[in-house]
Amino acid sequence: MPKNIIWQNHNTNKTIRSQMKNQRPCVLWFTGLSGSGKSSVASAVECMLATRLRHTYLLDGDNVRHGLSGDLGFSMQDRNENIRRVGEVAWLMADAGLIVLTAFISPFKENRLMVRNMLNKGEFIEIFMDTPLEVCEKRDPKGIYKKARAGNIKHFTGIDSPYEAPENPEIHIRNDNGSVASAANTVIQYLEAQGYLDPSISTTQGK
Amino acid sequence: MPKNIIWQNHNTNKTIRSQMKNQRPCVLWFTGLSGSGKSSVASAVECMLATRLRHTYLLDGDNVRHGLSGDLGFSMQDRNENIRRVGEVAWLMADAGLIVLTAFISPFKENRLMVRNMLNKGEFIEIFMDTPLEVCEKRDPKGIYKKARAGNIKHFTGIDSPYEAPENPEIHIRNDNGSVASAANTVIQYLEAQGYLDPSISTTQGK
Repeated sequence: MPKNIIWQNHNTNKTIRSQMKNQRPCVLWFTGLSGSGKSSVASAVECMLATRLRHTYLLDGDNVRHGLSGDLGFSMQDRNENIRRVGEVAWLMADAGLIVLTAFISPFKENRLMVRNMLNKGEFIEIFMDTPLEVCEKRDPKGIYKKARAGNIKHFTGIDSPYEAPENPEIHIRNDNGSVASAANTVIQYLEAQGYLDPSISTTQGK
Repeated sequence: MPKNIIWQNHNTNKTIRSQMKNQRPCVLWFTGLSGSGKSSVASAVECMLATRLRHTYLLDGDNVRHGLSGDLGFSMQDRNENIRRVGEVAWLMADAGLIVLTAFISPFKENRLMVRNMLNKGEFIEIFMDTPLEVCEKRDPKGIYKKARAGNIKHFTGIDSPYEAPENPEIHIRNDNGSVASAANTVIQYLEAQGYLDPSISTTQGK
């Protein structure tokens, strides 16, 4: 067993799980309009962390909406419940020692604050993908803005439902030039500067 | 980057995440009556895996019932939904490359089969903690059998709600002598014999 693994009370705990992974667990919470680049940048960050042998997991609509939140629709109540569950799973995964990335529009401040409050100080890193609506709408990779403008999707963020921008996000990415690599580098630099990739900085316990 | 990490399509995936952790992900699903030793044995297995530097996470009532399933009660419907969510989180964590342990009574075959079917072949390892009711009731570590017998808890498994024993569990532990270490060793030996701790055996993809 490496010397840096602390053994306490014959129980595994967050500290042991984090030290084994050579990292401080955290949740990289990407928020922004549909088409703002959340998933692309989160994937790029995950790849960059993988080359550094860091242990990550990306939660997004693909792996959550069909499974854990498969019983939920898109009413206000169901969207709130979806974000609550994602927050709880992110908490469990951070407790497992992982660096968790999430890519959800998560338009409401209240929901993002709820997740922030679930986690320990410094574990919630809000990343605001600040891409102007007109740029997102021009990209429209899934053709959903077109559908929303045609009235075929109701309560669509940016069209007929508000997006409450973060006021003090840990990372603010103005991504209108669309460089995924540049945006991902900004996130990696933040993690390095703040010591998340430094195993000598211990984690805190509990919820 | 170590040679055994396969890099594909510039995306991280389950294979990369598992190889980084030097293990095949799986879900060790402990099932059995309250007081049968699920949590104790699961904790002991987790510790034994930690000394082997394997990456694990234990899902149980303590970290799920207050958070992810905090909105659920103990009606039949809510108990089913709790197990469904635990299954979905176990799936996500296995996808993250972890060896997941779960400790829930999970009395109904149908629910356990649902979780088995979420996972790839060989990833769901059902561990039947086959401790006689009278032994569990004598232990009664939380005093809940006493409450259930007094009629203060309704639908209590083994008292006024059935426990459907697994017919072909991967691991069958008759734990009436109460040796946690012996039971945990049985699980570790199974994992070793089946190659879960052997990084040369690759994992399968997808859901």
